Amino acid sequence: MPDGVEKAGQLPGKVADKGKDVVTDITISIIDYDKQSYSERQALDVEECFTPKEKNNVRWIDVDMLTDPSVIERIGQHYHLHPLLREDITEMGQRPKIEEFEDYLFIICKMLSYDDLIEEIKFEQLSIILTKDAVITFGERPGDVFEPVRDRIRNDKGLIRSEDPSFLVYSLLDIIVDNYYLVLENLSDRIEEIEDKVVENPSPKILSKVHNLKVEMITLRKAVWPLRDVVAHMERCGSPLLSDTTRIYLHDIYDHTIQVMDSVETYRDILAGLLDIYISTISNRLNEIMKFLTIVGTIFIPLTFIAGVYGMNFRLMPEIEQWWGYPMALFIMALTAGAMIWYIRKKGWL
Amino acid sequence: MPDGVEKAGQLPGKVADKGKDVVTDITISIIDYDKQSYSERQALDVEECFTPKEKNNVRWIDVDMLTDPSVIERIGQHYHLHPLLREDITEMGQRPKIEEFEDYLFIICKMLSYDDLIEEIKFEQLSIILTKDAVITFGERPGDVFEPVRDRIRNDKGLIRSEDPSFLVYSLLDIIVDNYYLVLENLSDRIEEIEDKVVENPSPKILSKVHNLKVEMITLRKAVWPLRDVVAHMERCGSPLLSDTTRIYLHDIYDHTIQVMDSVETYRDILAGLLDIYISTISNRLNEIMKFLTIVGTIFIPLTFIAGVYGMNFRLMPEIEQWWGYPMALFIMALTAGAMIWYIRKKGWL
Amino acid sequence: MPDGVEKAGQLPGKVADKGKDVVTDITISIIDYDKQSYSERQALDVEECFTPKEKNNVRWIDVDMLTDPSVIERIGQHYHLHPLLREDITEMGQRPKIEEFEDYLFIICKMLSYDDLIEEIKFEQLSIILTKDAVITFGERPGDVFEPVRDRIRNDKGLIRSEDPSFLVYSLLDIIVDNYYLVLENLSDRIEEIEDKVVENPSPKILSKVHNLKVEMITLRKAVWPLRDVVAHMERCGSPLLSDTTRIYLHDIYDHTIQVMDSVETYRDILAGLLDIYISTISNRLNEIMKFLTIVGTIFIPLTFIAGVYGMNFRLMPEIEQWWGYPMALFIMALTAGAMIWYIRKKGWL
Amino acid sequence: MPDGVEKAGQLPGKVADKGKDVVTDITISIIDYDKQSYSERQALDVEECFTPKEKNNVRWIDVDMLTDPSVIERIGQHYHLHPLLREDITEMGQRPKIEEFEDYLFIICKMLSYDDLIEEIKFEQLSIILTKDAVITFGERPGDVFEPVRDRIRNDKGLIRSEDPSFLVYSLLDIIVDNYYLVLENLSDRIEEIEDKVVENPSPKILSKVHNLKVEMITLRKAVWPLRDVVAHMERCGSPLLSDTTRIYLHDIYDHTIQVMDSVETYRDILAGLLDIYISTISNRLNEIMKFLTIVGTIFIPLTFIAGVYGMNFRLMPEIEQWWGYPMALFIMALTAGAMIWYIRKKGWL
Amino acid sequence: MPDGVEKAGQLPGKVADKGKDVVTDITISIIDYDKQSYSERQALDVEECFTPKEKNNVRWIDVDMLTDPSVIERIGQHYHLHPLLREDITEMGQRPKIEEFEDYLFIICKMLSYDDLIEEIKFEQLSIILTKDAVITFGERPGDVFEPVRDRIRNDKGLIRSEDPSFLVYSLLDIIVDNYYLVLENLSDRIEEIEDKVVENPSPKILSKVHNLKVEMITLRKAVWPLRDVVAHMERCGSPLLSDTTRIYLHDIYDHTIQVMDSVETYRDILAGLLDIYISTISNRLNEIMKFLTIVGTIFIPLTFIAGVYGMNFRLMPEIEQWWGYPMALFIMALTAGAMIWYIRKKGWL
Repeated sequence: MPDGVEKAGQLPGKVADKGKDVVTDITISIIDYDKQSYSERQALDVEECFTPKEKNNVRWIDVDMLTDPSVIERIGQHYHLHPLLREDITEMGQRPKIEEFEDYLFIICKMLSYDDLIEEIKFEQLSIILTKDAVITFGERPGDVFEPVRDRIRNDKGLIRSEDPSFLVYSLLDIIVDNYYLVLENLSDRIEEIEDKVVENPSPKILSKVHNLKVEMITLRKAVWPLRDVVAHMERCGSPLLSDTTRIYLHDIYDHTIQVMDSVETYRDILAGLLDIYISTISNRLNEIMKFLTIVGTIFIPLTFIAGVYGMNFRLMPEIEQWWGYPMALFIMALTAGAMIWYIRKKGWL
Repeated sequence: MPDGVEKAGQLPGKVADKGKDVVTDITISIIDYDKQSYSERQALDVEECFTPKEKNNVRWIDVDMLTDPSVIERIGQHYHLHPLLREDITEMGQRPKIEEFEDYLFIICKMLSYDDLIEEIKFEQLSIILTKDAVITFGERPGDVFEPVRDRIRNDKGLIRSEDPSFLVYSLLDIIVDNYYLVLENLSDRIEEIEDKVVENPSPKILSKVHNLKVEMITLRKAVWPLRDVVAHMERCGSPLLSDTTRIYLHDIYDHTIQVMDSVETYRDILAGLLDIYISTISNRLNEIMKFLTIVGTIFIPLTFIAGVYGMNFRLMPEIEQWWGYPMALFIMALTAGAMIWYIRKKGWL
Repeated sequence: MPDGVEKAGQLPGKVADKGKDVVTDITISIIDYDKQSYSERQALDVEECFTPKEKNNVRWIDVDMLTDPSVIERIGQHYHLHPLLREDITEMGQRPKIEEFEDYLFIICKMLSYDDLIEEIKFEQLSIILTKDAVITFGERPGDVFEPVRDRIRNDKGLIRSEDPSFLVYSLLDIIVDNYYLVLENLSDRIEEIEDKVVENPSPKILSKVHNLKVEMITLRKAVWPLRDVVAHMERCGSPLLSDTTRIYLHDIYDHTIQVMDSVETYRDILAGLLDIYISTISNRLNEIMKFLTIVGTIFIPLTFIAGVYGMNFRLMPEIEQWWGYPMALFIMALTAGAMIWYIRKKGWL
Repeated sequence: MPDGVEKAGQLPGKVADKGKDVVTDITISIIDYDKQSYSERQALDVEECFTPKEKNNVRWIDVDMLTDPSVIERIGQHYHLHPLLREDITEMGQRPKIEEFEDYLFIICKMLSYDDLIEEIKFEQLSIILTKDAVITFGERPGDVFEPVRDRIRNDKGLIRSEDPSFLVYSLLDIIVDNYYLVLENLSDRIEEIEDKVVENPSPKILSKVHNLKVEMITLRKAVWPLRDVVAHMERCGSPLLSDTTRIYLHDIYDHTIQVMDSVETYRDILAGLLDIYISTISNRLNEIMKFLTIVGTIFIPLTFIAGVYGMNFRLMPEIEQWWGYPMALFIMALTAGAMIWYIRKKGWL
Repeated sequence: MPDGVEKAGQLPGKVADKGKDVVTDITISIIDYDKQSYSERQALDVEECFTPKEKNNVRWIDVDMLTDPSVIERIGQHYHLHPLLREDITEMGQRPKIEEFEDYLFIICKMLSYDDLIEEIKFEQLSIILTKDAVITFGERPGDVFEPVRDRIRNDKGLIRSEDPSFLVYSLLDIIVDNYYLVLENLSDRIEEIEDKVVENPSPKILSKVHNLKVEMITLRKAVWPLRDVVAHMERCGSPLLSDTTRIYLHDIYDHTIQVMDSVETYRDILAGLLDIYISTISNRLNEIMKFLTIVGTIFIPLTFIAGVYGMNFRLMPEIEQWWGYPMALFIMALTAGAMIWYIRKKGWL
């Protein structure tokens, strides 16, 4: 079931306090870096996010587990975020989007990853705020797909340490889209599995598997399609927060989102085709069985009739009395059966 | 059945007088508020709507039960509404739309709410008129979804008391869209219910349930889709009646309508998929039964034939006379039955 | 079958002379009116259309039964109509369209009305020419849907007598679209009828009824869809022939055409859904019958086999000789039948 | 099968030499005309096309049977045609298109005509070149649909002799589109034929007829759709080769192409509906037969069982010995059969 | 399965080192040509690509087998290619696209060819770089479809030797699209084959053949559709790297891609239709067989019942004792069978 259903009648612009599943230990990690230096730490208190940092440093604040609204309120205050955005961060089921403000860019997107344990696609909404010297990310749960980016920062691989915060945003979006490919790969594997089974061993379970794949495909499309618009908007918009280098790299993500969409559309077509084949195959199989059984029945019914004739008790049945009566009856039966089998074979029914 | 069928040949621009179900007690409630003060009263006479109020106050006139055309005529006169608008207010089955005039904005939208008693989506057409110091709302029936907004005005929660009339219009539209989410949630629950039943216990009733859900989905889409355009128009249009604050908040509604549409499209896809699964499952079940019955029949038909053979009355049937005749016949029958069952099992038909 | 097939190889710009069904009595009615005065007469000769009239009067010339091409030629000459337009007026099966000329506007649209006698939608092509002081309408057959408009002129109801010719054109288009609603209402009634029957008593006749409804829906859409563009064009175009008042009123027609289209689309969806339900229901019914019959057959086949066994003529069948043989056989049969019925019930097949 | 498959690896811009079916007698007809004079002749040598003509004359060179590439090469040289155009003329399977050059316009379109003999739609690609004083047309085969245009030129009917070459191009396109109507009419007749048969006598042949009609519809659409763009381009483009009169007349063709497309879409919808009805009808019929046969079988199976019971050879079957045994057995059988028929009737299965 | 799945978490802008299938012998062929001279050689070392050449010469560097990333790195360095492009060249599964840089154009497209041996469409990604005096092409595997272009260069056929590098790019794209036609032709042949079989001998194998054709069609469309945009972009963009001659010729490719898309759409429609016919035909056939068998069964069941009646052992069955009993029974049976056959024939069931 698609999510996106919020509580009606709620005050707009107020952070949702999801009381029932409050977990106190919110995780805030702060990474400061520039070409020369790098520091990483876990913040126990939200105020640590606002400690002054040396000039030109990029600061990445990553907040997980959105259970304590006060953290978002505090960060929102510090960075002058619009109240509606604070609401957007805490409300799950948002559509990927970008909003441009004077001092910051606000991006919502979906992290997807395939969880091998529960054999399901895991969803997580990610909010990214890009200011002129910091990037703040809000995740839904602890754990994310950003480890490779952190590694690149730690080990100064690639351009990331030399570039501004917008390049960090690009790197995060890039890794998110890369994970879409992994999810796609997994979907592709499962479709291929079904493709094989449909031919060899079509069972009704395939129906619900195809249904699940379709729902997952719809989910993936709902994550990718608006992200494409987000990236296209970032490429074109004149915001000074985005460097020219970032813009060129963003086009790469744009191409990737189109490729993912292309593949999703292709898989949808293939799935629809598989469903047709499945339905046709399974109906064919059943029909073939029924045909065979009906043929068997049809051959024996006339034979039983012949036996019935000679089981009649009429006093005067001349052939009954003869020695050749019984063999003749058996012979007639064999002949009848043979004729029917020959006819059925000739017609190509068996 | 979609509504929207008016009487042909009627004079355009004249208020429809729905004579047959006139109910005299029209309900008019008037709320005046600003940051400092707040007053609420029920008007018994339409003239009460036009009593002078202190400057800068926002006045919200809420008219329910559109049975007395004279009330609308009188309000229309006072606020110089175009005759065609007066007609639009009284004619049900309008498409959500916005019309911009020099002195006022005119908005038509649909209130939806799920009525648990009759297990149906309840529709109500709402006309909103925004002037520079008042908001007038015309509902179809008594009762609406605006109680949370009234509470916010009464208790000065949020921004509403500090803002101008356009913010009240935003608040009303916001609460209407929030109720779309509730309706969606209800639809989603019913779809999940069907999703479970389709697998466990597919009955023909599911067909008409899916049909009803589809019709409700179409109805919801017909309410949301044009509302999206209405909100988009309000965001972009240059009308001085809309404050900048309102415009920013309206974008939030715009996002919500897109999310609702997204979910509706997703549900449609899922419903179509469920219908396929249902049809396939029910046909599979019936086929399985027929297969089983046919197998039973097919096993006994040859046995009956063998019995028929030894029921023939030929004088000369050598095996008839022997002591081993009867056991042999039973043995042949058992053998035949066993061979057929073995063959059917081998083929995987049972 | 959609029409619109003209004779190939015909000279373009020449009025088609439909020789075979010439009816001499063409009907020309002329109404002159302004706020003060009103006159109505039947013209016997086409020249009467060109009699001078007092200044500022609006003249409405209504020509029915397009069998005499000379009438159109003559009117065309008088009002300097382009030869291709004269051709458009006489050729049926035109698509609704508007063409803007310096001195006149040319509109083609479709009058639809439901004929209760022949239970069919009646089509009539209407050509409207709007000049600065006259409106000329060409109908296909005598009889139209404009009586309410004539009444309003005669009795000076509404704005029509105070306004210019373009308001008359608006009034005509408005009444035409109102009749679309009547046709829609009729279609809606017939769909509801089918909706009920599909559940209670699905018969193959429903198939062709659904087919007819679909064809009528397509026809209605082909009349409404281009009319929407015609009205939108009239609203936007800068032609001085259209007064500002008319333009505002035209928007109302625009909204109505969109509502009609919306309903048509909805009905199409519902019809498609009904077809699915019909097919599924009828196949379910037949399957249920077959299932019942097969069960009956399957229960008796083993019983017949048992009877067959004891009908064999072996000399040595010990149980045959015993007094308890017959009751035992009957008991075994009853047991077998009971076991099968129990099994079928347990499986939920009956 | 759609055509349009050229030889890969061929040199672009070179005229295809279709060696295998060279026919030497290429047909070139030349018509010179203006308001005053008219001359028509068959050219035996391509050089005759370039003989000087009096000023202001329109020259129409019509070349059929494109087997001798040298003719096109020569004409191409004389009129300075771009090499790629020469290639376009000789390659069949082109999409209708227009290309604008400084000195000439190049148009490709499809002539369609229904051939009653082979009961098929005949295709012919036509290339039209419009220069400031000549029109050159290249047809695929001898024979075309232009006889009515030639008649008009010969007998000075309509405007054609008074107008410039672009009006001749309009006249040719007009007659081509008129022939689309004829093809449509034919398709419409065949669809109506099928519509009747589907109800009366659905046979599997209808399937392939519907398939053929669909393929022909696709073909027609592929010819009309791009032609619409061609005509729209001609209307809008600023080329001095097209006179204002021609532009006005072209709009008429534009309307016609839209009408053809409209009808094609309608027919497609109707065909799809017919296919549904056919499949449903044929499956209904077969099911009805099976139902009848199964009922017959089901009635006799219990009777046979009863007969079987009294055919058992037990020594002690009391009723066997009585005089009323036989009539009683027959009575029980009649009763059983009656009860079953009554039950089946009550259920409405027969 | 569509490809396009890259390794997630990979550093963007770094050339993928596909370690497992490194083949050392990369093939680099270099062709230098202008109107006067021509030279062709195989480069053993990548540095040979950068040897100076005489002015105004066009150099075509063709690199096959992308296993050694250092070659691309080196060429990328020499021609100042953006790091992301180097990545694009080595990553398979890219969507056809064009990127415009100051000094060069970068084009990715798909070479398709039908491999008769493995009866499959072979894919190869081709990257083209156009600089002001050189064209560099990177293929996936040895072997390409460019031999006709090389021939034209070697033998100075057509314009190629007289034109600039952009004309070489045009020639390569032209030959690639020509190969799409060949693939289309092959698909068309296979569809026609299926079209014949569907009518004569529908077997379940057709289902998977249609499925394969559909997947291949999707693949072809994914190659052609974006190529159309690439060519359209080249036509319109103002890059000085493209000569005016090339631009005119490119329009020809543009037309061809649209024709290919048209045909693909047509084939998809036809395939969908064939699937419908197949499913309908196969279900008809099976139904016909079942009908025949059921008729046979139904005729014999009443006969067996009659035989059963006279097989009953009642002492008092008057007709049993008579000499005419047996013939009468046979006569009744014949009569019953005859009546049933007559009825079935009359109903037109056989």
